[in-house]
Amino acid sequence: MARLEVFGVEGLPEIVGGMDLSAMIYEAAAAQGDPLLDGDIVLVTSKIVSKSEGCTVELDDVEPSEFATRWSEKWDKDPRVTEIVLRESKRVIRQIGPVLITETHHGFCCANSGVDQSSSGARDRILTLPVDPDATCRAQRARFSELGLDVAVIMTDTFGRPWREGQTDIAIGVAGLNPLFSYIGQEDPHGHEFRVQEICTADELAAAGELVKGNTSRVPVAVVRGFVWERDDEASLAAVLRDSERDLFR
Amino acid sequence: MARLEVFGVEGLPEIVGGMDLSAMIYEAAAAQGDPLLDGDIVLVTSKIVSKSEGCTVELDDVEPSEFATRWSEKWDKDPRVTEIVLRESKRVIRQIGPVLITETHHGFCCANSGVDQSSSGARDRILTLPVDPDATCRAQRARFSELGLDVAVIMTDTFGRPWREGQTDIAIGVAGLNPLFSYIGQEDPHGHEFRVQEICTADELAAAGELVKGNTSRVPVAVVRGFVWERDDEASLAAVLRDSERDLFR
Repeated sequence: MARLEVFGVEGLPEIVGGMDLSAMIYEAAAAQGDPLLDGDIVLVTSKIVSKSEGCTVELDDVEPSEFATRWSEKWDKDPRVTEIVLRESKRVIRQIGPVLITETHHGFCCANSGVDQSSSGARDRILTLPVDPDATCRAQRARFSELGLDVAVIMTDTFGRPWREGQTDIAIGVAGLNPLFSYIGQEDPHGHEFRVQEICTADELAAAGELVKGNTSRVPVAVVRGFVWERDDEASLAAVLRDSERDLFR
Repeated sequence: MARLEVFGVEGLPEIVGGMDLSAMIYEAAAAQGDPLLDGDIVLVTSKIVSKSEGCTVELDDVEPSEFATRWSEKWDKDPRVTEIVLRESKRVIRQIGPVLITETHHGFCCANSGVDQSSSGARDRILTLPVDPDATCRAQRARFSELGLDVAVIMTDTFGRPWREGQTDIAIGVAGLNPLFSYIGQEDPHGHEFRVQEICTADELAAAGELVKGNTSRVPVAVVRGFVWERDDEASLAAVLRDSERDLFR
């Protein structure tokens, strides 16, 4: 039976553009006495990827649109931040009171297109989500492979959701591991289809990682060890993003 | 730093009405060489609680309403099952094509009011969600306490969600542990509020547990060990259920 170990990777320095995150994670894990092993799942917080890939916007460079300005004034928001949120989105899902829920260019549905002012490291700088999280995860997995390791990589972020209070960590990119596990076609002894058809394993792994990362601590990477997964080099988080035609809540 | 261990509890017999689940979990964990420890978080799948509490309906006893009958015929569903889904709900959130998303009497938003035909153990029997999951969790925590253990209890179920494919395990009842962890009021060094305000720890713990339980295996209980939590005997899952006035998706 599966028995998992979940731990954080500490001791990473402040991340700046161009850093080799995989090598740094590899070294930091070894330095704390937890060298990575084949089969590990490495959960990387998007924030450090955004920093290493230079996904930042200086607020002084932003010229807000009239629409962004008017709405922001009404709700006491910085119109330059609103402008970035809109630029990072392909559509607004809900704009009610001061809340702005958007669908990002990647297809993630979340508050404020996932942009982050508090983690940017400077008062007038905004972090945006990485441009192609799957591609980053694949590059990281390939880099781990060069270091001799066969690990899956999941990029995580912390999103809210309808109906329930509190945010949880979810997956925004994957490499090596299919984000969904399917029970489709299996039947119980009475010939009923199982009520559960498909589990979003990647989101559950992300959630498990948050329990050791926390959101204000300096632990941007977690490792899940002991989870059995099939190698799938075609894996993509796109499989998790429900088509808007099939979605009842957009 | 937190380091978690997550494992399943195997060897429980088929559950029937009136069983003392806490004592059985206690014994099964010890029997597999993993005696429960103070501070453990015990994640119990709702299905076995429904069975032990007799939350079952015999389809032969159900007289479907005209509404249930008409809709079920259109979508090739059993009108008696639809009738139970409607009885278990306080409102229909979406009824589009063959999909029926409801809000249960407890306030959970999910497909088909969480009723389950495949796990009931008989072809013409339906499992419904436990009537008062928080109360059950509290009773289980109290029972563990009689056995000398200070553990938190979380009842879990497997729900879908808007926007994303795949289901995940979430918490539907808690005892001992606040389901939410708040960062509200904390600020970064630049005086920004954190983007993340509140984490739904209980849902993340539930998700971690699913990774070792699976949905078709006979592992209805998981344990998370090593997570640090404050004792809170007033804890209730009600804190996680967003008021419909505050909810943008109901």
